[in-house]
Amino acid sequence: MDVIRAPSSSGEASAVDGCDAVGFESRLLRKSETIGTEAHALMERLYPLCRSLTGDGVRETLQLLKEIIPLKIHEVRTGTRAYDWVVPNEWNVRDAYVLDGRGQRVIDFRVSNLHVAGYSAPVDEKMSRTKLLEHLFSEPDHPDWVPYRHFYYKDGWGFCVSHRQLSELKEPEYRVRIDAQLDPGSLTYGELFLPGREPGEILISTHTCHPSLCNDNLSGVVTTAMLAREIADSPKRFGVRFLFVPATLGPIVWLSRNEQIVPHIRGGLVVAGVGDPGPFTYIQSRRGATQIDRAVAHVFKHATSTPAAIRDFAPVGYDQRQYCSPGFDLPMGCLMRTPNGEYPEYHTSADNLQFVTAAALGDSWRLMRLVLEILEENRTFLNLSPKGEPRLGPRGLFAEAQPLGIFWILSFSDGHHNLLDIAERAQMPFWRLREGARRLEECGLITEVNTRVVEQNV
Amino acid sequence: MDVIRAPSSSGEASAVDGCDAVGFESRLLRKSETIGTEAHALMERLYPLCRSLTGDGVRETLQLLKEIIPLKIHEVRTGTRAYDWVVPNEWNVRDAYVLDGRGQRVIDFRVSNLHVAGYSAPVDEKMSRTKLLEHLFSEPDHPDWVPYRHFYYKDGWGFCVSHRQLSELKEPEYRVRIDAQLDPGSLTYGELFLPGREPGEILISTHTCHPSLCNDNLSGVVTTAMLAREIADSPKRFGVRFLFVPATLGPIVWLSRNEQIVPHIRGGLVVAGVGDPGPFTYIQSRRGATQIDRAVAHVFKHATSTPAAIRDFAPVGYDQRQYCSPGFDLPMGCLMRTPNGEYPEYHTSADNLQFVTAAALGDSWRLMRLVLEILEENRTFLNLSPKGEPRLGPRGLFAEAQPLGIFWILSFSDGHHNLLDIAERAQMPFWRLREGARRLEECGLITEVNTRVVEQNV
Amino acid sequence: MDVIRAPSSSGEASAVDGCDAVGFESRLLRKSETIGTEAHALMERLYPLCRSLTGDGVRETLQLLKEIIPLKIHEVRTGTRAYDWVVPNEWNVRDAYVLDGRGQRVIDFRVSNLHVAGYSAPVDEKMSRTKLLEHLFSEPDHPDWVPYRHFYYKDGWGFCVSHRQLSELKEPEYRVRIDAQLDPGSLTYGELFLPGREPGEILISTHTCHPSLCNDNLSGVVTTAMLAREIADSPKRFGVRFLFVPATLGPIVWLSRNEQIVPHIRGGLVVAGVGDPGPFTYIQSRRGATQIDRAVAHVFKHATSTPAAIRDFAPVGYDQRQYCSPGFDLPMGCLMRTPNGEYPEYHTSADNLQFVTAAALGDSWRLMRLVLEILEENRTFLNLSPKGEPRLGPRGLFAEAQPLGIFWILSFSDGHHNLLDIAERAQMPFWRLREGARRLEECGLITEVNTRVVEQNV
Repeated sequence: MDVIRAPSSSGEASAVDGCDAVGFESRLLRKSETIGTEAHALMERLYPLCRSLTGDGVRETLQLLKEIIPLKIHEVRTGTRAYDWVVPNEWNVRDAYVLDGRGQRVIDFRVSNLHVAGYSAPVDEKMSRTKLLEHLFSEPDHPDWVPYRHFYYKDGWGFCVSHRQLSELKEPEYRVRIDAQLDPGSLTYGELFLPGREPGEILISTHTCHPSLCNDNLSGVVTTAMLAREIADSPKRFGVRFLFVPATLGPIVWLSRNEQIVPHIRGGLVVAGVGDPGPFTYIQSRRGATQIDRAVAHVFKHATSTPAAIRDFAPVGYDQRQYCSPGFDLPMGCLMRTPNGEYPEYHTSADNLQFVTAAALGDSWRLMRLVLEILEENRTFLNLSPKGEPRLGPRGLFAEAQPLGIFWILSFSDGHHNLLDIAERAQMPFWRLREGARRLEECGLITEVNTRVVEQNV
Repeated sequence: MDVIRAPSSSGEASAVDGCDAVGFESRLLRKSETIGTEAHALMERLYPLCRSLTGDGVRETLQLLKEIIPLKIHEVRTGTRAYDWVVPNEWNVRDAYVLDGRGQRVIDFRVSNLHVAGYSAPVDEKMSRTKLLEHLFSEPDHPDWVPYRHFYYKDGWGFCVSHRQLSELKEPEYRVRIDAQLDPGSLTYGELFLPGREPGEILISTHTCHPSLCNDNLSGVVTTAMLAREIADSPKRFGVRFLFVPATLGPIVWLSRNEQIVPHIRGGLVVAGVGDPGPFTYIQSRRGATQIDRAVAHVFKHATSTPAAIRDFAPVGYDQRQYCSPGFDLPMGCLMRTPNGEYPEYHTSADNLQFVTAAALGDSWRLMRLVLEILEENRTFLNLSPKGEPRLGPRGLFAEAQPLGIFWILSFSDGHHNLLDIAERAQMPFWRLREGARRLEECGLITEVNTRVVEQNV
Repeated sequence: MDVIRAPSSSGEASAVDGCDAVGFESRLLRKSETIGTEAHALMERLYPLCRSLTGDGVRETLQLLKEIIPLKIHEVRTGTRAYDWVVPNEWNVRDAYVLDGRGQRVIDFRVSNLHVAGYSAPVDEKMSRTKLLEHLFSEPDHPDWVPYRHFYYKDGWGFCVSHRQLSELKEPEYRVRIDAQLDPGSLTYGELFLPGREPGEILISTHTCHPSLCNDNLSGVVTTAMLAREIADSPKRFGVRFLFVPATLGPIVWLSRNEQIVPHIRGGLVVAGVGDPGPFTYIQSRRGATQIDRAVAHVFKHATSTPAAIRDFAPVGYDQRQYCSPGFDLPMGCLMRTPNGEYPEYHTSADNLQFVTAAALGDSWRLMRLVLEILEENRTFLNLSPKGEPRLGPRGLFAEAQPLGIFWILSFSDGHHNLLDIAERAQMPFWRLREGARRLEECGLITEVNTRVVEQNV
């Protein structure tokens, strides 16, 4: 039992290039600053596009992402059934405006795509001010902000305006035009699968259906894209799948078309609203205490400077609702900063390029990267010298034993504790213990065990 | 798996008539006020009767209850064995007094039945003041109150008097008479079983052996009787059994004669001391965390305005000691307001008709009713559209989804969570979710599963 | 099921002589005062001996202990393999000093054996002050204290001096002599096994390798010896094994030579640093929540006047590291007062006979005795009258039912709760319930069940 073995799999590269443990953290911190800036620049290009549940704005968004990641773009035809749902008509707007008596555009889609409520039916008529007002949405509490509204799964049309704009509409009659198409077409989503060495995959999903709103959810789109780019070329243990889908219907459509993949999903994240400067919030998976829940809690504890909040699952909020629905019950949680609906800028024109910062995007990316590191590298080892402590001095491990948690790894590598279990008990960062495990594996003191047999946390 | 089915059992009436969820709470609140007044009036009629472990006072009490509920009255003969116990002689008092030199009754059973210690042996002699004093009980700390004492399972006799009364006994000799009978007879208890549709029953037990004391335990007797009357005629899922028994020996006798029923008891309450104005107290069952324990905690959380206390089981207190003894280990707890022994009026003449209020009785009744509602209606459902969220709009459920916890029911109706589990996780009142489940069942989105297979909380 | 049986095993003597429950506590308190004084006197005799990992100082220490307990002394030859370790050469010092120009001993082994670093190689040469200083260890923060250092498993030599002493070394050259032997010999340890009636044993281990240091660890040595003496002659349920071994290597050597005993160890304590006046600290076993962990927590709660601390297992500290290594994973914790390294006197000459008090030693002994009482007497019983409460009055148990927890024992003696489980739930001292169980067993209300079948806590 206490035979000294030669290093085995330790030569394999991990998802992270290089790996001295302490350096890993500071290198990642530096890299996150660069990436935050790149992510914000990407967001500036995506911002003007008129996204919705379907339509060309989504296609253009995904095409732009294809410049940096090899996304596969899927089109799902109108009328396709997906469980209790049906893919609706596709919606596109060419132009939309309200003209006053002098032919001036007093409401103009070209100024902001938020001005037209999503899925508005085409309109082309003169109408009284009174009738027009029935179709206008404004937010009196924030008179300069334009709200975001839509007519998903119901008939209707509307314009969204600032309350100031609304109060200036004093003429008796207006010319109203929404040059929109609402016809059979398709729902568009993007997918990127990066394969791993071992069976099983990790799912990162983000929604693409909101128009010119930055935090909700260009922040999720750009950080997810940056994460995919970062790890695209490095060897991975488990596959990683990235989905860029419209909210609610997107996951339902994807799940209905990929049921055979569901059993292989080891866990993952819905990423949404990660660009505002607020502290992090994580919504646990329905099951709670799954590996993804513990990984996020671990990263929050060891890698955030401001207090981060963890909330229990609730069947509200973003797309974790679909992935966690009882027919799937996937171990997926939702990473946000300030939760949806809890910041005043939410679903208004104030959720803009200034509201979202490069620093927040970069830091969100860093946390996603650390969570992924845990999901990828949470291995289970067996101490090959389990009776008493082995001597570390002769193996050159004495000096780094403490910072790399080497005694903890030796003590708990009994085949029943994975590295995250040990990191939690030791109250040490996972990535330090991962490096400690690498050293111990190199000198033959531990060996990886078949996690398929022993793991219980996924 | 996501087939839409027609409503099945939802048409069946529940134990509660009518059931729009929010209205249920306010209707019950109003009804509880009326019932509190009725309960207090009933207590006024029961108050003068001289109850004890056995005897005619108990018989008269049960006869009076028969006016409102179809109670079956049992007589168990003196000498009958019940496990480690034996039914003792029956005790009845015709009259009792102490006469002074002028033949005046200075202590008089006719003034209060508390004046004679329970199970006092017959006495008829002249005796010195000194000897008499050895047989008198008073409470110096409350000089106007008469204490309650008895000689169960031991020989003796005594009078209970106020300390003021005692201090006025200055004559050298007194004539002492207790015209009591302590002869073979029987122990009397009342029982009412209301059958249910499904196997299994709920047990509500209250003790009847205390003489003119209101909180301990006419309060339990009258609220239990009112609860039985309230539900007597409505269809029920599980049977409900009501026991009006002397404390300690009563449950032991009942259990010894009904062992075949014990396995069918799903849980229940011992009701005692529920008429004082103090906040509620619940003593958990021996096992703890059983359905009754969780039901009471839920009702305390969602339906009491003043903070209510939950205490761990301890083998002291009221009759839960017998139902929870290790040979039975029933999931039964004890509902009280201020616990026995923790209010100064306890076991004294000050526990009278003024100490117990109609409002307290009515509110106790309301809580018992809500607890019973949970025990009756805690069903387990299966979401028939479990992959992603089903669309609520087309089914007319959208507006009430939030107040009725519809998303919670859908998310957790996986066959492993009953409505109480879901109500706890959602932090919503059980009765709202029960209504939500009714709506979902009506439109075929959920179906009840055989609880006998999946439930684990009883 | 409710048959009344005659007393069975209750006549057997327990490890404790006499046993009225309340008296037990106060008798033990008085005895601990005497034992503290004896323990300190024993420590005074052991203090001057030059102990190390091996050598004659250890032999003399164990010989001295043989005066009070029938210790068996083992010699394990240099070169013997023990898992990843090898027994090193034996080390003995005859004399050691540094002479100044006048031939005066400016550092003198005869003054304190701490002056020579353990396992120093022999030296005999004149050398410059500069070179000598490279071999001197002092502690500038405490200029009057001599630190403790050693050269285990590495080559070298050194003297330990007070910083004041070091600063007075001003001559250019010194004569340095360490008359030590570092040659093949053996590692010496002591063992005492006291057999029990039932299979299984309890292990108490303490380290013997430190020179003239009192708290670390003559305190462990003398309290363990006193405990062994106390229980040597009384009949025991389980065997008790005492080990007096050098730290780290000692347990590893013992384990490697006694693997067949390991499965029989029900739990135990590493005793170290129990003589300082600080409050108690207990380091839990690796598994945590084992019987020893619960026993110590119980004793801390019910038998210490100052707040005692319980810490989670960590793979650092004393010899529990070896006993808890994953190849053995024994339920053993570590009893200390102020933890090693957390008091300034630690590993210096200030850890002397004044630092350790008789009162602290006596109180540590008392706690060890109580913990042992729980490990020995934690039996599981079955209530033979489990349906309802049995009558206590006719059995003469009524008066003591409350102080001896008799209702608790009856309520939870269902074969699934041992006395410690019940004591924890009742929040009563274990030794009271042990006495209550004895009374109940005497009158046939409970009977012991085969713990080998039902116990789950070891």
